[in-house]
Amino acid sequence: MEDRHVSLAHGNGGSYMRELIETVFARHLSNPLLDVQADAAALPPMDGVIMITTDGFTVQPLEFPGGTIGSLAVHGTVNDLAVSGARPCYLTLNAFIEEGFDMAQLERIVASLASAARETNVAVVAGDTKVLPRGQGGGLYLAATGVGVRPPNLELGLDRVKPGDLILVSGPVGDHGVAVMLAREQFGLSGELLSDAASVLPLTQALVPLPGLHFMRDPTRGGLATVLHEICRATGLETRLNQAAVPVRDQVASVCEMLGYDPFYLACEGRVVAVVESPQASEALARLQALPQGCQAAIIGSVNHGRPHVVLETELGGERILDELEDDPLPRIC
Amino acid sequence: MEDRHVSLAHGNGGSYMRELIETVFARHLSNPLLDVQADAAALPPMDGVIMITTDGFTVQPLEFPGGTIGSLAVHGTVNDLAVSGARPCYLTLNAFIEEGFDMAQLERIVASLASAARETNVAVVAGDTKVLPRGQGGGLYLAATGVGVRPPNLELGLDRVKPGDLILVSGPVGDHGVAVMLAREQFGLSGELLSDAASVLPLTQALVPLPGLHFMRDPTRGGLATVLHEICRATGLETRLNQAAVPVRDQVASVCEMLGYDPFYLACEGRVVAVVESPQASEALARLQALPQGCQAAIIGSVNHGRPHVVLETELGGERILDELEDDPLPRIC
Repeated sequence: MEDRHVSLAHGNGGSYMRELIETVFARHLSNPLLDVQADAAALPPMDGVIMITTDGFTVQPLEFPGGTIGSLAVHGTVNDLAVSGARPCYLTLNAFIEEGFDMAQLERIVASLASAARETNVAVVAGDTKVLPRGQGGGLYLAATGVGVRPPNLELGLDRVKPGDLILVSGPVGDHGVAVMLAREQFGLSGELLSDAASVLPLTQALVPLPGLHFMRDPTRGGLATVLHEICRATGLETRLNQAAVPVRDQVASVCEMLGYDPFYLACEGRVVAVVESPQASEALARLQALPQGCQAAIIGSVNHGRPHVVLETELGGERILDELEDDPLPRIC
Repeated sequence: MEDRHVSLAHGNGGSYMRELIETVFARHLSNPLLDVQADAAALPPMDGVIMITTDGFTVQPLEFPGGTIGSLAVHGTVNDLAVSGARPCYLTLNAFIEEGFDMAQLERIVASLASAARETNVAVVAGDTKVLPRGQGGGLYLAATGVGVRPPNLELGLDRVKPGDLILVSGPVGDHGVAVMLAREQFGLSGELLSDAASVLPLTQALVPLPGLHFMRDPTRGGLATVLHEICRATGLETRLNQAAVPVRDQVASVCEMLGYDPFYLACEGRVVAVVESPQASEALARLQALPQGCQAAIIGSVNHGRPHVVLETELGGERILDELEDDPLPRIC
């Protein structure tokens, strides 16, 4: 019987590597721009400002409720372009595969990556695979670089955030973090919760036409609290979060309570935090809520004069400061 | 005393990660387009066809005579653009760092990456770091994506290779493979040999104006023999190599003889194989030889009608077929 595991020879540039690339990667990712025999891909002319981003993926387990490391690589990369106001067009893909990796699982992961790429309308135009000797891997790591285009006149960024701006989130926070945590089974818990991993492009494109839109970011590693810290640090302003207003699923809240996590620090992979001028916040909210993935969107806080702290207004009427994340509560989350 | 090793917290999106990115990566790689607070970088308008390529790097040891995994990530990526006829402009960078990695070594590697980027005139415009739990790493892996521009009218590719074309190489083969092998010390050998790792841009730019230039490739994983196999497979033609004409350093030849390696399969990281129309081959050779890194360039073979085999004409006047590489003689070479 044929050995259906990745070997070191699948990484050496020879016939096994060619076979791996042709039968697994090229077969699923095939598109007119992907030429596995070329050193570099020529991109068609693009209209607008070219935007580029890159992201590494090490999530464990590699397949989890609501996604795989493959679909996550597409969504994570596409989302970094989307929140910068761009439309994603192209991806490049690196795979680091550990010797002995199950070929059937690799196929499933590449298929899920290909399906996410099709759904978000991006083409994988170049790729590379390396095989890591057994014991130096951890299964599979991916890196992806995304290229997109942004309208030339669009100005978004931390430097546009002003006192008085309101903060919105497009949906419940912490689903991805908790879904991955439960999938590890190390806590003896399991659940029906799906990761929120998805493209946020429909959400960002709904907001981009608003002239009062100042800044968007997807709250991945470090979660919502970390995005707010980034705002504080860049602007010198205070951000204030209304705990009662932040959507958190019951299951996420109860897992967090049991294990001592704070949902505001847990990764999302399909949410957007947007900072909008106050007069346009209700219009922004309506635009998010009009989309299926934005139906639980909410205005959750504000940017204010004051010390550059993230202040949480608790449901009991008190206040506490959300510190910047230090220790890692949850490695290999994305 | 401060712990000078990478911890899981350096990968979690919080304050440690910010410090790692600011004090190690951004400090060395600083340029006007690199904004560590942005999700995506906006690229200035580029003139010509935009080319993109990506490559992963897992070389072991991470520092070897003539380079590091950092400089190799720049050279390897830049070279894929260069052999496609492009001028490299921008890089994105992913680092997968194993928990416990020595911060001083990381600094050295990032500094060598930065220095290679400056020398080749490319800017690192976006990056990402992930920390792998101890035992799931192998020290450090890098992935890089390169963006460059190619003149619109330039046509290079395997489909342009024709019977009668001559094959050139820009310098001795196998230096990188042997230098890395010796640096591992597992063979009880050591030597003065340096890796050939370098940008091949001066070489490719010298050849690009020649209308008879049909194809270029850098012989990395799988070496010279693998490039010739790619030509055979794509064209259905025979390639013929004159063993006596292929430059191989004495030290590379004797290590290969001792360990049973064939230098034609060993990786180079600073050489170019070029396929040129016969009437322009001597002009191409002269252009390569006029450059310091091309002074040992040679015409080493030809493309011919015949079965799609790589035929080696031996120094003794015989012939043998160089098979396609199967087993991996040397993992983690690039």
